[in-house]
Amino acid sequence: MPDLKDISWEDFQKLDAASKAPYFLREGHLYHVLYAQQFGRAGLEELGSLATRIRFIAKSDPGMAFLRGLLPFKRAMLYFTQPSTRTFLSFRSACQILGMPCGDVRDTATSSEFKGESQEDSVRTFSSYFDLIIMRSEIGGLAERMAWVLSNTDRPVPIMNAGSGKDQHPTQALLDVYTLQRSFEERGGIDGKRIVFVGDLARGRTVRSLAVLLANYDGVTLSFAAPRPLQIGGDILEILQARGIACDVGEDFESRISGADAIYMTRIQDEWDARKGDSARIDTSRYRLEARHLAGMKKDAVILHPMPRRDEISTDVDRDPRAMYWRQMRNGMWIRTALIAGIFGRDRDIHDHEIEDR
Amino acid sequence: MPDLKDISWEDFQKLDAASKAPYFLREGHLYHVLYAQQFGRAGLEELGSLATRIRFIAKSDPGMAFLRGLLPFKRAMLYFTQPSTRTFLSFRSACQILGMPCGDVRDTATSSEFKGESQEDSVRTFSSYFDLIIMRSEIGGLAERMAWVLSNTDRPVPIMNAGSGKDQHPTQALLDVYTLQRSFEERGGIDGKRIVFVGDLARGRTVRSLAVLLANYDGVTLSFAAPRPLQIGGDILEILQARGIACDVGEDFESRISGADAIYMTRIQDEWDARKGDSARIDTSRYRLEARHLAGMKKDAVILHPMPRRDEISTDVDRDPRAMYWRQMRNGMWIRTALIAGIFGRDRDIHDHEIEDR
Amino acid sequence: MPDLKDISWEDFQKLDAASKAPYFLREGHLYHVLYAQQFGRAGLEELGSLATRIRFIAKSDPGMAFLRGLLPFKRAMLYFTQPSTRTFLSFRSACQILGMPCGDVRDTATSSEFKGESQEDSVRTFSSYFDLIIMRSEIGGLAERMAWVLSNTDRPVPIMNAGSGKDQHPTQALLDVYTLQRSFEERGGIDGKRIVFVGDLARGRTVRSLAVLLANYDGVTLSFAAPRPLQIGGDILEILQARGIACDVGEDFESRISGADAIYMTRIQDEWDARKGDSARIDTSRYRLEARHLAGMKKDAVILHPMPRRDEISTDVDRDPRAMYWRQMRNGMWIRTALIAGIFGRDRDIHDHEIEDR
Repeated sequence: MPDLKDISWEDFQKLDAASKAPYFLREGHLYHVLYAQQFGRAGLEELGSLATRIRFIAKSDPGMAFLRGLLPFKRAMLYFTQPSTRTFLSFRSACQILGMPCGDVRDTATSSEFKGESQEDSVRTFSSYFDLIIMRSEIGGLAERMAWVLSNTDRPVPIMNAGSGKDQHPTQALLDVYTLQRSFEERGGIDGKRIVFVGDLARGRTVRSLAVLLANYDGVTLSFAAPRPLQIGGDILEILQARGIACDVGEDFESRISGADAIYMTRIQDEWDARKGDSARIDTSRYRLEARHLAGMKKDAVILHPMPRRDEISTDVDRDPRAMYWRQMRNGMWIRTALIAGIFGRDRDIHDHEIEDR
Repeated sequence: MPDLKDISWEDFQKLDAASKAPYFLREGHLYHVLYAQQFGRAGLEELGSLATRIRFIAKSDPGMAFLRGLLPFKRAMLYFTQPSTRTFLSFRSACQILGMPCGDVRDTATSSEFKGESQEDSVRTFSSYFDLIIMRSEIGGLAERMAWVLSNTDRPVPIMNAGSGKDQHPTQALLDVYTLQRSFEERGGIDGKRIVFVGDLARGRTVRSLAVLLANYDGVTLSFAAPRPLQIGGDILEILQARGIACDVGEDFESRISGADAIYMTRIQDEWDARKGDSARIDTSRYRLEARHLAGMKKDAVILHPMPRRDEISTDVDRDPRAMYWRQMRNGMWIRTALIAGIFGRDRDIHDHEIEDR
Repeated sequence: MPDLKDISWEDFQKLDAASKAPYFLREGHLYHVLYAQQFGRAGLEELGSLATRIRFIAKSDPGMAFLRGLLPFKRAMLYFTQPSTRTFLSFRSACQILGMPCGDVRDTATSSEFKGESQEDSVRTFSSYFDLIIMRSEIGGLAERMAWVLSNTDRPVPIMNAGSGKDQHPTQALLDVYTLQRSFEERGGIDGKRIVFVGDLARGRTVRSLAVLLANYDGVTLSFAAPRPLQIGGDILEILQARGIACDVGEDFESRISGADAIYMTRIQDEWDARKGDSARIDTSRYRLEARHLAGMKKDAVILHPMPRRDEISTDVDRDPRAMYWRQMRNGMWIRTALIAGIFGRDRDIHDHEIEDR
């Protein structure tokens, strides 16, 4: 089986996403979680079914006790050098649900980096004390690099990418797919659905990851509504087209509402502006979902948003039953719990656990 | 029963403290802890007796094991956007005593707020992952607002106010009352006692809350010694007088020492100065308790301070047996433990728990 | 038995390290951990053997469960006002291994100190809520001062010094000794070995502490290779010479490689520069260990570094089996676990625990 310690960093970098995927397994099961694309359709279904199982078990106190007994002797490090609330808290909650004690570094000012330590050494330090490293960084590819570095030490531990650079935020994409799976559960699943992405599609790493994941489903149509400078990247469109996915790209949002099975709203990510204020010069006022749009939506469509939001979704929309973004957020906790349980091989125990009648 | 989800924010705001109180209950027991004034005399006695019970149970390892088994499947979020040491740590300790895992945000720079998220959305996010939100903010009324917001979602969780704005810091007032209860336990309780408040009474939110709570006791005299610009607010005096409480207001501290059953010292809260340096222009040198004052105090009087202190109490005073402020601090941990246990309906179990002979 | 509450701070300060040591015991066992020098040879051996025992027990899940059951009802406060990653995380891990919940203050901006609270009061506050205070500060002697202060209250708790000022970092020195014990386990132990210290020996508090600890071993030679302005202090040399330890001091590093049993590399600690940039004016380029040096080293020598490193050790060296600095880091977790277990008197239970055959 391929192993990161048997390949040079340079050679590994040359591989495409599909060829990299097997390197992230260990003895056939999930080890590193680095790219959304390392999950194929079967993997997505399996993950979703594990998350659902956990969600049901967690409904009772004995169920919670069972979950908390799964990983009490593993400890997780949350290494977040990029600001985050919900990703951080939902990972922490996932660890707590599984009984794992955590350490964290959330602010590099309190850490050794000011003393000139390399990030390789920092991460290797964490691996000395912890059994899992969950990391978020504004440096693209850092999580992948660290997985490779650690694999070449005598104390490798799994790495979970909680967001790296502009490019990858795999657990967000996975929870998005899970939310779609749940939303369309009684309507034949994701196959054949039309999903409309709206807003900052150029820099929203979750959109990029999610779009590629949706290419695993049959007959989906992906529609991208964004102002021209924030439109989805050509690289993504190429991938989608190569996989035969119907794509629809345009500037108009309103005309795309009525046909949508899911509307995925996003925030303008001005923290990535090359020059401060660049985003402010783009007219984004037409990329907001407001109460007046609800009447034109399909009755069983769903509204998603990776959150946090600014004004892309009016708070009036929150009480509409199609507003799924709060549930989507909570799904993040279940998906992350499922991933961690899977990494440590506890998925079998979870599926085997009998849920008591209540 | 009144419920926050059945009343508009505007209508709710118009209610007085007494009319709001029932909205903070759920099925007859405590749910939100927002105002000191939501506790009447019976509530204060009950809370104190629960805290005392917990304090005794915690003296043995089996007792600690019992407490830690009370809430292992609930998780608490500590959301502190205003600096705090002791309130934060004592809440965290309270959660740990009850076996509750915690998440925390202590610095908005590491959170999503910089991305433009509203505080409503932030708090709703916490409610997605946690079962209790303990919050401290410099914005007056924020905790109350959030309790209302969450009650109108499909995942309401209780809110504990750990200090909001200049106005309310209910758990501090509750621990102060508890300290007075304990101090006067063998002397007929708080009824009939003279309590002297000293220092910055205008901006000390704990003084304001505590004064109103003491109006629940018979025959107390409240004495306020402060420089004129920092004297207790007329609104508080009005409330006290309406409830028939004897009040005594003046600038001189020393002359009030000998008659006091309790002296409540406070810090000059210059962080609330309208213009930096305003407080420094007020002569506060006569509002300090020093060793030379001890001889003039009643033998069984007590000295309180919400801490932190600067120079209002000389460290020489610390070893005097009447110095109660360190015990007062530790009482905060027990009161907060009692409140959390009460919110989740575990008070009965605590009272029923048999303490072993030792 | 001597007790900190029976001696004035002024008198205590006048004692030398050896005379202070008994004050850090309580009923014959370890209580405060403040100086490396409070450990004699017997204490070092005992501590090492406890750490090794813990390390073996921790290899199995039942062993981990045993360890985690040792201190579930004690809580630890991590008070780190000086930046730190590995010391913080390894202490936290140690507490987690023993089942102790933790609180922490890592940034004084979120704490009460900005309100003008003295550090004495802060630490006394922690002692109100926690059973152990682990503290790191840039103020020399602060941990010692706090141990004295707390001993004079009615709620004393043990203090562990996790680094104070330029002078003391005892747990680092203890883990260094442990690493040397392990490294020379099959070669007669530390006695008779030659240890070469390299780099910033003037300001590296770990070198200063470690050198003095090594004076407990017979026939060791300590060699100090550093640029003149960063050479080891005369005070340390005096102590070593008074105890009959062979010392060798010079500027040349390369010539000292071949004779070394252990090479202890250190980072230039420019954060202590009197004027920013002072260190940059010193040529430190000849105090780096590079791959080309490895051939000249003894086959069974070891390379240590307290970490973090900059460029004092080339990353090429990391894979050499003599590179012991990553294991050294992990040893820190075991030594800190052993110290905490010892403070609370659980060492006996650990030695008595039967390790199952596997």
